[in-house]
Amino acid sequence: MIETDTARSLQNLFDLDQLESMEHLFDRLFPLCRSITGPGLRETLQILTEFIPLQIFGVPTGEQVYDWKVPKEWRIYGARLTAPDGEVIADFTQHNLHVLNYSVPVDETLELEQLQTHLHSLPQLPDAIPYVTSYYKERWGFCIPHSVREQLKPGKYHAKIDSELVDGELNYAHAILPGESSEEILISTYVCHPSMANNELSGPLTAAGLYQRLKKWNKRRFTYRFVFVPETIGSIAYLHRFGQELKQNLYSGLVVTCVGGHESLSFKHSRREDAPIDQMISHLAQNNSLELRERPFTPNYGSDERQYGSPGFNLPVGQISRKLDGGYKEYHTSLDNKENMPLNTLLDSVDQLETILKALEFDGYYVNQSPYGEVKLDRHGLYPDMNSHQTRSKSNNEVIDSRQQLNRILTILNYCDGEHRMLEIAEKCKCSVIDLIPIVQLLLDKGLLKGPYSMKRGLDS
Amino acid sequence: MIETDTARSLQNLFDLDQLESMEHLFDRLFPLCRSITGPGLRETLQILTEFIPLQIFGVPTGEQVYDWKVPKEWRIYGARLTAPDGEVIADFTQHNLHVLNYSVPVDETLELEQLQTHLHSLPQLPDAIPYVTSYYKERWGFCIPHSVREQLKPGKYHAKIDSELVDGELNYAHAILPGESSEEILISTYVCHPSMANNELSGPLTAAGLYQRLKKWNKRRFTYRFVFVPETIGSIAYLHRFGQELKQNLYSGLVVTCVGGHESLSFKHSRREDAPIDQMISHLAQNNSLELRERPFTPNYGSDERQYGSPGFNLPVGQISRKLDGGYKEYHTSLDNKENMPLNTLLDSVDQLETILKALEFDGYYVNQSPYGEVKLDRHGLYPDMNSHQTRSKSNNEVIDSRQQLNRILTILNYCDGEHRMLEIAEKCKCSVIDLIPIVQLLLDKGLLKGPYSMKRGLDS
Amino acid sequence: MIETDTARSLQNLFDLDQLESMEHLFDRLFPLCRSITGPGLRETLQILTEFIPLQIFGVPTGEQVYDWKVPKEWRIYGARLTAPDGEVIADFTQHNLHVLNYSVPVDETLELEQLQTHLHSLPQLPDAIPYVTSYYKERWGFCIPHSVREQLKPGKYHAKIDSELVDGELNYAHAILPGESSEEILISTYVCHPSMANNELSGPLTAAGLYQRLKKWNKRRFTYRFVFVPETIGSIAYLHRFGQELKQNLYSGLVVTCVGGHESLSFKHSRREDAPIDQMISHLAQNNSLELRERPFTPNYGSDERQYGSPGFNLPVGQISRKLDGGYKEYHTSLDNKENMPLNTLLDSVDQLETILKALEFDGYYVNQSPYGEVKLDRHGLYPDMNSHQTRSKSNNEVIDSRQQLNRILTILNYCDGEHRMLEIAEKCKCSVIDLIPIVQLLLDKGLLKGPYSMKRGLDS
Repeated sequence: MIETDTARSLQNLFDLDQLESMEHLFDRLFPLCRSITGPGLRETLQILTEFIPLQIFGVPTGEQVYDWKVPKEWRIYGARLTAPDGEVIADFTQHNLHVLNYSVPVDETLELEQLQTHLHSLPQLPDAIPYVTSYYKERWGFCIPHSVREQLKPGKYHAKIDSELVDGELNYAHAILPGESSEEILISTYVCHPSMANNELSGPLTAAGLYQRLKKWNKRRFTYRFVFVPETIGSIAYLHRFGQELKQNLYSGLVVTCVGGHESLSFKHSRREDAPIDQMISHLAQNNSLELRERPFTPNYGSDERQYGSPGFNLPVGQISRKLDGGYKEYHTSLDNKENMPLNTLLDSVDQLETILKALEFDGYYVNQSPYGEVKLDRHGLYPDMNSHQTRSKSNNEVIDSRQQLNRILTILNYCDGEHRMLEIAEKCKCSVIDLIPIVQLLLDKGLLKGPYSMKRGLDS
Repeated sequence: MIETDTARSLQNLFDLDQLESMEHLFDRLFPLCRSITGPGLRETLQILTEFIPLQIFGVPTGEQVYDWKVPKEWRIYGARLTAPDGEVIADFTQHNLHVLNYSVPVDETLELEQLQTHLHSLPQLPDAIPYVTSYYKERWGFCIPHSVREQLKPGKYHAKIDSELVDGELNYAHAILPGESSEEILISTYVCHPSMANNELSGPLTAAGLYQRLKKWNKRRFTYRFVFVPETIGSIAYLHRFGQELKQNLYSGLVVTCVGGHESLSFKHSRREDAPIDQMISHLAQNNSLELRERPFTPNYGSDERQYGSPGFNLPVGQISRKLDGGYKEYHTSLDNKENMPLNTLLDSVDQLETILKALEFDGYYVNQSPYGEVKLDRHGLYPDMNSHQTRSKSNNEVIDSRQQLNRILTILNYCDGEHRMLEIAEKCKCSVIDLIPIVQLLLDKGLLKGPYSMKRGLDS
Repeated sequence: MIETDTARSLQNLFDLDQLESMEHLFDRLFPLCRSITGPGLRETLQILTEFIPLQIFGVPTGEQVYDWKVPKEWRIYGARLTAPDGEVIADFTQHNLHVLNYSVPVDETLELEQLQTHLHSLPQLPDAIPYVTSYYKERWGFCIPHSVREQLKPGKYHAKIDSELVDGELNYAHAILPGESSEEILISTYVCHPSMANNELSGPLTAAGLYQRLKKWNKRRFTYRFVFVPETIGSIAYLHRFGQELKQNLYSGLVVTCVGGHESLSFKHSRREDAPIDQMISHLAQNNSLELRERPFTPNYGSDERQYGSPGFNLPVGQISRKLDGGYKEYHTSLDNKENMPLNTLLDSVDQLETILKALEFDGYYVNQSPYGEVKLDRHGLYPDMNSHQTRSKSNNEVIDSRQQLNRILTILNYCDGEHRMLEIAEKCKCSVIDLIPIVQLLLDKGLLKGPYSMKRGLDS
């Protein structure tokens, strides 16, 4: 296995929190002709290192990764389909979707009838160029708008594709952002589709933006692993190398895909269904900290969560998306472009992912340091020192609030026995775990609590 | 303990799958005066050996079987009740229900008034002869239609019962049909009622027919144990001898009783409530592979499932019936005859029991042999090798079906981790486990799966 | 730690089962000025020893009990607030609620305006004297009806409180009523409020009455521990001394508070939520053996169940009350008096608590001594010895009852496998566990059952 470590120090020339810098990066990446291997993929990863210090890996052609074998690397230099009258029907320089992805080279003149088996178009979207691939069987082809195809006249066409399939490598990359613990949170996205917006760039741009956010946090409890792979075979190759490490360390993970657009986010549960990530996102959605729908796990369709959730790994990795599983009109066509994917919605995705991660950082098992009998709250400035009809609804002498804070303090102290997650305690308080962050911080500061811990533990540990 | 091994090789002169042969057998067995002991019981078992190679056992009078003691053997040769005018009121040769089952001998002339305490009739069914027994307390009696009883005139009646209670034995029988595993499935039915159809012969005839079906299967995963006993004391005696063996080997069992008639089958759950047999029959009923109602377990009434489900054994044995727990008009009377129990419904019971057993053979834990990442399905001829808008809904290049088969393959491969039963996987597929049989066979043939196993296991075992 | 063992032999001069003796005791205890420490508390415990052989303990001022420290002992001898015109506004001898509980001494003349910060009244209940305390911060004050306060005219008032805060002790007491087992049931109540009825005397009077009932039982399976403490700090001090003992032995417990009045009883679940006490009271309520509502556990308000249910102890202690958590008009005022709390309702509380305890004594795991096959019931006089249409609905030859008793016998024998509580078996019988007491006694007498045991066990143990 060859490794190409091209990680650089993060330059932050552009802060992806700004719409303009997000758009600038989008415009650089969009035209590249990516595939599951090849120069377009490598260049994409290279550009991303300006924003996130990716370490880039390569797996050579022919290497077996579980049930899969890394194919030859595809290199495409140009392609043109010319009509009998000399008109150019499809040109790679106009749009890289015109070439069937992974086309073998061709330089042939043939009748329209013969050509038809090499053409791909969509009657239902007559102006769109479809996206078609043939990674594992040698083919060549052109993808064109159906409206153009219907105008083709009989005669001899010239098909020329200047590509090669060579022994090379399949690339993927990751960046590790260390935290206090070796327990990890995985953010995984894919980089293998040519010029498409939602079903390609929304993921890497959002992941890079999220990386920049987490980098700024004062402290991180978890170690964060950002993974950029070609979909399916890339995550399988990644698991082949890092799967055991993930099995050992992974606390929670998310595959980020198609997160642009105005639909609310949607969470596909992990195969485990009740891992911390599953419980947390359900909790946040049910307590209005996120506007988000939920879907059950399925291995039948989706993205790389299917690989992380294959039975041999069964990792706690869900999937976050706005556009579900190909269920939108522009999916896999030239219409999946910037116009149909407002870039500001990626910034909103970054915000919401950060909320989820903050909640995961906060959640866990805490231990009351004074668990025998009630804590004498007034001694700690958390309770009024006189009991009268006027004080009974106050949480201390000064603050004339409702009893809400006092009740939350009492509930937290009572259930922080090392066996109840803070999320469960929030549900006893009938609020979002996010609402408990300042109160728990107060109790930590006063030495009344210790935590959070990822695993259950006894009161005396 | 005396054993009478009378097992013969199965002759199959009659195939019980035919209505005529079923009726022929019925007509031979119906007239015999069976009881919990005696010649009628033995002759019944002997006739059945022509269809199922029963091994017949005997337990001697006086032997203690748990809380019970085997009573003396009852032999009945004749009985007649004669009116003062010489009219024969009841004659054993006319119908064996006329004699209270287990009557001691009597030869006495007595006034009508004295006679009354020895007469049994049913006001609510005035033309029926009731079925009455007194196994454990010495009595004599005659059972007659209530319409006849009301016509009796005062005077001296002559009661003569030519019977004896002698040291003998209680008989039961079983046949073992071996399978690949020593794990067993039990089919248990009873043979102790005199001339009655549903509440006697429906069980043994159906069990014998089912034996013949299973005998024809190409292979059997489980070993099948067919048990024919006098109800209650017979199954207790059987457990006394074979209970430990059953505790060790039994995977699932069914008591078959009253399975004639047009009502749909009904399943009484085993005491365990969630044994494989319980889960499977619920699953098949809920997914329309069986038309069947369900009942909870109760020790309060029913048949021998109460003995198999006594707390010391707690075997996973349910009960299958169409006529529930005496809840039909003809129950325990001379009206429970062939006219009221269409014999073709026994053939339908055989069919449905075979479906249940096939499903149990198929169910279990399977293990994906390539569990790390997805299986590359096209490599195994299970997926199209080009990804386009046209191929996305196909399961391979040739078959233009819906994605249903592909989805089932993906779901099966993902959840065959040695920890999910196939029944659970079928529920994830929202279909009956029966529908998955051909797909699982395909995956077994391709070496992608191993199984079924009866117990959970790891991926690497 | 100082102990003052003042236990006497129970004299039973008054049987608290009589309304008059209950009232006599009430009238002796009501006028005492109790607090969390001091002579009023001690005198109350002393009087109670005439009815229940309490052992009285003392914890010295300054001793740390977990997060709490025992305060100085409060002694109050008199208090009077005099108006400029000489009128007595508030006099301790008229009502002990007039003095803010734990007032430091004062002898001061001051203007109305200055006095106001030391006055407490309730606008919403203008004729009531409120109950106000300041145990842990030194203050003085008077509590008066709001109607009186509004009439006060400017001028110089004389405030005189003759009290002292001295090194002394905090007292609590318990009585142990031994049973066959060292497993314990706890009845805990509090004795720290001055002249109030429901929110003070209802608990100790009911507990004392219950003690007298249990004393009369022929046998007790459990050991009963009756605890009388000042609320909160008293139960914390009690746990500091006896908490480990309780952790080891406690099977179930109840805090008894505000159990007077015509509302039905209400049960607050223990922190464990599914301890035997939780399951039993739910069961009795759902099966109409108690008229009782249920509340979930909360640490946010309530009585000493919050201390027993602090995370370090997590004892199976619920709370029984009629007047919930201060949710009644008279709460913490001079209106909480005998007129508003009919004493006969305390006798009803004793009855209902006795029912709960009887059910707990009866419940548990029982073991069928003949678990292999059915018990032959006729052999034990529990079943008819003839099977006919007439006898099928009888439970033996003599008793012409419905099959109900027979069904209960069969269900009990089947499920008494050492793994089902009698409460669960009652639910299978669709009746209250109370209804099974005579049947189980019958089966115990016949040697068919053994039990009850508090823990699951095998059939052969």
